[in-house]
Amino acid sequence: MEGVGAGSIIRRKENGEHEWLTDEVTVEEPLEIRIAGEAVATTMRTPGNDEELAAGFLLSEGIVRNRTDLQELSSSAENVINVELAPNVKFAPAATQRFGTISSSCGLCGKKSIEFILQHFSPIDFTKDQTRIAETTLLDLPNKLSAAQGNFARTGGIHAAGVFDAAGNAIVVREDVGRHNAVDKVIGRTFLDGLLPLREHVLIVSGRSSLEIVQKALAARIPIVAAVSAPSSLAVNFARECGQTLIGFLRPPTFNVYSHIQRIGTA
Amino acid sequence: MEGVGAGSIIRRKENGEHEWLTDEVTVEEPLEIRIAGEAVATTMRTPGNDEELAAGFLLSEGIVRNRTDLQELSSSAENVINVELAPNVKFAPAATQRFGTISSSCGLCGKKSIEFILQHFSPIDFTKDQTRIAETTLLDLPNKLSAAQGNFARTGGIHAAGVFDAAGNAIVVREDVGRHNAVDKVIGRTFLDGLLPLREHVLIVSGRSSLEIVQKALAARIPIVAAVSAPSSLAVNFARECGQTLIGFLRPPTFNVYSHIQRIGTA
Repeated sequence: MEGVGAGSIIRRKENGEHEWLTDEVTVEEPLEIRIAGEAVATTMRTPGNDEELAAGFLLSEGIVRNRTDLQELSSSAENVINVELAPNVKFAPAATQRFGTISSSCGLCGKKSIEFILQHFSPIDFTKDQTRIAETTLLDLPNKLSAAQGNFARTGGIHAAGVFDAAGNAIVVREDVGRHNAVDKVIGRTFLDGLLPLREHVLIVSGRSSLEIVQKALAARIPIVAAVSAPSSLAVNFARECGQTLIGFLRPPTFNVYSHIQRIGTA
Repeated sequence: MEGVGAGSIIRRKENGEHEWLTDEVTVEEPLEIRIAGEAVATTMRTPGNDEELAAGFLLSEGIVRNRTDLQELSSSAENVINVELAPNVKFAPAATQRFGTISSSCGLCGKKSIEFILQHFSPIDFTKDQTRIAETTLLDLPNKLSAAQGNFARTGGIHAAGVFDAAGNAIVVREDVGRHNAVDKVIGRTFLDGLLPLREHVLIVSGRSSLEIVQKALAARIPIVAAVSAPSSLAVNFARECGQTLIGFLRPPTFNVYSHIQRIGTA
């Protein structure tokens, strides 16, 4: 099974006895992302769906914006993904360095402020946006996310992310040892499928929401971000400033809304 | 309260009613670490205990090894910590760049392999090391860690790390929005107090254990690492190779042992 490795371990059971087990442990390996042959980032990720991860990364970093900006994704060696940008896409490695190197479950990685991010992405105009989601739909999302997961149940050491439409239909669900990799994969998939902008969609993550999670949602123009655990203060500030609805502690039947509650309908 | 910020949110209650709340959200702000005036790393962290964080970072990166290597830590501006190394300590910024920039809850940040880390830190010789911990002591650690925590209970969005002795006495417990920052803080505290090497101690973390967690433990010579959640595959491989006992899913009355079980006594 891709992304899951086996090893022998000893488990202390509830009755105090010990048993040998073959445990499945989440595999993490480095993925090097190269643009025109040059390494621009390395991330520790769960192997699999590397094209999606690269596409989501490129979108989040502001390197590509439209599907046609991305000419080709290919793998020349294990743990290497090669990106060919369209000839008209300007790419300055120096600018990428300012964004820093992504890595497993990173929060920010060199992005120093909301202001800096907003130089690359515009806020969502919540006065015009009419996206709404029913409370009942929202409350169903964690179960739908779990149902689509495989690795998490086995290892407990993996993050899940999903893009759903406002009616609660799953568009794509992915898992990764790194929280932001899982988000890159789901957003990358929708990008590759030409589904962007995701103006009437929800991003849900199995853990916490950090600044980078809501920033990646903004890059895909997702107006609603929901997390099973807590948001960070920067994530809250960012969502408020960028017109995004941020939901935390989504644990049916309860949840918290940190910003722009108008998108949540009680009907 | 340092590290916790307040904001107005709306909470959906169990009965479906909504209420206004003032929620405490974990604060994350960037900390820039400077050596001799030059910025070498920026991490998103929960403000507070910045000297400890910097000391733990310097130790984990192999920049300092002994207490006397670190001459002074001071803050010249908000979110900046200045490090003065002893004159005899060699510091090559190029080498630090190979380790990469630390960031919130990072797993690896540029460290490409166990081999690379082992160029800087030697394994623990488990054939000579006599450290033992009783199962009952181990099973008490999660409760002791929780009892020492403040922020976690309130926000649910923060990681905790603790160093305990083999008899189960807490040496230091710290919290941070970034898992590896919490570890840097506890290890940094023991470093600053001249307590290293921690040859008869346990490092416990509230979440998952990644490669970087066990690597930081090795830098402090800690032979036993316990985590409430799952380890990553790299963490397991690293602990096996480096002579460390790695415990996962430490949820009384059960736990898993992934390596070097000889240190755990059933008495």
